[in-house]
Amino acid sequence: VTSTALAQRVRRTIERYDLVPPGTRMIAGLSGGSDSVALTILLTDLARLPGPGAFELVAVAHLNHRLRPTADRDEAFCRTLAERLGLPIVVESADVSGFSGEAHVSVEDAARRLRYGFLERAAQAFGATRVAVGHTRDDQAETFLLKLLRGAGSTGLGGVYPRRGSVVRPLLDASREELKAFLVARGEPWVEDETNTDLDNPRNRVRHRILPELDLVYGGGAAGAIARAADLVREDGQWMDELAEGRFAVLVEFTPEGLAFDTASLAAEPPPLRGRVLLLAMRQGANGREIARAHVEAVLALLKGQGRAAEVPGGRWELRRGKLVLFQQRHELK
Amino acid sequence: VTSTALAQRVRRTIERYDLVPPGTRMIAGLSGGSDSVALTILLTDLARLPGPGAFELVAVAHLNHRLRPTADRDEAFCRTLAERLGLPIVVESADVSGFSGEAHVSVEDAARRLRYGFLERAAQAFGATRVAVGHTRDDQAETFLLKLLRGAGSTGLGGVYPRRGSVVRPLLDASREELKAFLVARGEPWVEDETNTDLDNPRNRVRHRILPELDLVYGGGAAGAIARAADLVREDGQWMDELAEGRFAVLVEFTPEGLAFDTASLAAEPPPLRGRVLLLAMRQGANGREIARAHVEAVLALLKGQGRAAEVPGGRWELRRGKLVLFQQRHELK
Repeated sequence: VTSTALAQRVRRTIERYDLVPPGTRMIAGLSGGSDSVALTILLTDLARLPGPGAFELVAVAHLNHRLRPTADRDEAFCRTLAERLGLPIVVESADVSGFSGEAHVSVEDAARRLRYGFLERAAQAFGATRVAVGHTRDDQAETFLLKLLRGAGSTGLGGVYPRRGSVVRPLLDASREELKAFLVARGEPWVEDETNTDLDNPRNRVRHRILPELDLVYGGGAAGAIARAADLVREDGQWMDELAEGRFAVLVEFTPEGLAFDTASLAAEPPPLRGRVLLLAMRQGANGREIARAHVEAVLALLKGQGRAAEVPGGRWELRRGKLVLFQQRHELK
Repeated sequence: VTSTALAQRVRRTIERYDLVPPGTRMIAGLSGGSDSVALTILLTDLARLPGPGAFELVAVAHLNHRLRPTADRDEAFCRTLAERLGLPIVVESADVSGFSGEAHVSVEDAARRLRYGFLERAAQAFGATRVAVGHTRDDQAETFLLKLLRGAGSTGLGGVYPRRGSVVRPLLDASREELKAFLVARGEPWVEDETNTDLDNPRNRVRHRILPELDLVYGGGAAGAIARAADLVREDGQWMDELAEGRFAVLVEFTPEGLAFDTASLAAEPPPLRGRVLLLAMRQGANGREIARAHVEAVLALLKGQGRAAEVPGGRWELRRGKLVLFQQRHELK
């Protein structure tokens, strides 16, 4: 793959998903790893091209996670690269371990939340409306497999979204390998993340053990095939989620105790929408707690006349005179 | 899992998917392997239970594939088991290799087609309207992964269907392991298929290499999680396929050259239906040849104004005065 061919592919990804409206001011997240270095350089190249889809890359943003022994080396690397490319760089330090403890979330989750919070602030500081991050087709395949193993349905299986709010992922159609080859061809260095080899981490296990095994089944191409399936499943899931929101608004009744649905009307919905409407109802009272597929199944069983009540995060479903009622818990006083 | 608990679970699977209307006469496919032996015995047990969901197991059917050195041993085993259970058995021999050559399909594909053809004839001979086969939750997970690696979207990813026409799969919520444990506890023997260990076969590779690796990612339960995801994706896919058939009927125009769609109307369809409508159109002229996702993508690109024509199995799409036209090839004379 030539440099130009890769840049063209990234441009097509941007067009295909309408990631970047013409004239957009954008920043890029830069960790110093091969994906984000390639992202920064490819966007610098593309931003120079004139034409109707032109955008501006106005800065890069680096969050020093202070988790790895090499954190300061990585920060210095990013500062040097930005200077060489003539891009302003904004750097912040984060106390990931501290936040992970306070918020009772995994270190990975804490790092992700702090990173996206930082990127949003950095974008605002530069008057940018898009934040590009370096997720690749391989990340897409890994995320799909990880969600699959957790029993996600089509909404979760969609994996990594090309765009979520202001965050865009222009490298989703490129592989990690070809990004590295691109950097090597350009003589561009990057820093390696040595924690990427720890096999106790589920994502690393999928990357280093599962995907190579999957490649052996049909002689290669596993990540690409999985990423394409994820695209289709995500497209389907997004549309059905939208439909379900419409049906939820039509079917829901607000009562003093919580939410209610007419059982006959709910039972008349097609199964994919019925489950999603129930999920939307439960999310309202769950206060951010995760609703599992098992909770949806329990309520669907109630609707079929199996059982009398179903306990779910933040509430309890019961059948009452032809209605399926979600009694929501009051928020506890502290 | 006790015998009774497993039988109850199979009964719930039957109810959940409405596999067997009350009073149905059913036959079971019996290969002699643990899955189909367990199926036959569990259905014999369930058929004895009185109640509103009662059905009759009227015979078993065994196809001698004549592929393995143990084929005649397997046939003899099935005859003995049927006799012991007091069930009539119908046996046929098939020339799988010969048919595979004639029909230009893989041996696996040939075996599958011959088997289902045989089972249908056997059912008719016994006045049965359902044919039970022994696919398990593990088969479901394996099929999902195999289709995933071939880049299937949500229709293909649904994997093994609980019911297709008269064929039903009551063991889809049971694992291969627990069926074996059930047989051991009952003192029931089965025959082993020694070809199941050949790792050049994609399914065997998924079974013996991939699924055990996937179990290591989150400490087990991979096949169950994948099977649940397959259920949800299949439910979504089936519903969207039905919707797409309705939209196809509304949007299609039949012309002397083939099929046509008004581009503006087609472009106004939501993406998941647009792709499926195009797929339905292409299937009409494809004469059983497979339409790949790449064909759908090529036509979607045409619709976006990219390119002038798209060649597909059995025809060629072109844009003509606001219409997207599929020029169908005449069937060649032989």
